[in-house]
Amino acid sequence: VAKTLSPEEQDFINQVSGLLEPWGLVGSPVRVYAYLLLKEGPVSLNQIAADLLISKVGAWKSARSLEEFGHIRRYGEPGSKRALYGPTDSFEVPYVRQCQLLGDLSGLLDSTASTIAKGSAASRLSDMSQFYSSMRQTMKTAIAKLEAGRSARKRQRP
Amino acid sequence: VAKTLSPEEQDFINQVSGLLEPWGLVGSPVRVYAYLLLKEGPVSLNQIAADLLISKVGAWKSARSLEEFGHIRRYGEPGSKRALYGPTDSFEVPYVRQCQLLGDLSGLLDSTASTIAKGSAASRLSDMSQFYSSMRQTMKTAIAKLEAGRSARKRQRP
Repeated sequence: VAKTLSPEEQDFINQVSGLLEPWGLVGSPVRVYAYLLLKEGPVSLNQIAADLLISKVGAWKSARSLEEFGHIRRYGEPGSKRALYGPTDSFEVPYVRQCQLLGDLSGLLDSTASTIAKGSAASRLSDMSQFYSSMRQTMKTAIAKLEAGRSARKRQRP
Repeated sequence: VAKTLSPEEQDFINQVSGLLEPWGLVGSPVRVYAYLLLKEGPVSLNQIAADLLISKVGAWKSARSLEEFGHIRRYGEPGSKRALYGPTDSFEVPYVRQCQLLGDLSGLLDSTASTIAKGSAASRLSDMSQFYSSMRQTMKTAIAKLEAGRSARKRQRP
């Protein structure tokens, strides 16, 4: 078996997998994600498959699901097995989506609290709705801060 | 088929499922979670299975995984099929865990940026690390606000 990854790179991939495993994020997608984080430029599915010792179909499925969620970036035709994949600079995208979810859930829980829910269930849903709304607001602050820093750096080196 | 849930309750469960589906949260666990949100007190696995038209084993597996992640609360022996399940008042628990993950990831990415990563990969990891750290900090603010409100209400009605 050809070893193209250094022990340090393998260790990083194992550590990221270990952290994400309790979240139900397991197997090849997490390893492909961690592997690409170490890359400076895009790589082919053949390269990913060879370096991670997985099948090309496995690499392709992993890359497709990661790209769909905004965790990695695709270069080339969508769905094509010849596409290249690399890490994304827009790593806030999953958090932008989480904010959207929190907003949607907050609205749904709030309207349910005042209609079909009763007693302690109604007050719990109302409390949850407020918490999700406050969480969404505070997460948006962190995203705005990131975007402001990015714009400032772009102005410095145009 | 006995219909024990009202159309409004079924609609709520379908809406929660629809919102969580893009996050890979699908099937019985999401439906059990949404169903319990409407309950004022704990219910049995038999009741859950009957109301959601799923098997008792399916209800048990769903409840166990939801409880493990802090999404619902168990009353009774762990692992027992006679345990009762209800919604949790500690609905911030998954967010406390996400803060922990963000802190761990931020540390790992930061140390990797200064060791094995190179060039644009190193600066990206460093930027991600900073973003995760700032996201963690801001999420902790929302959790602290929730906990402060809870303590204030407890003092009002002891």
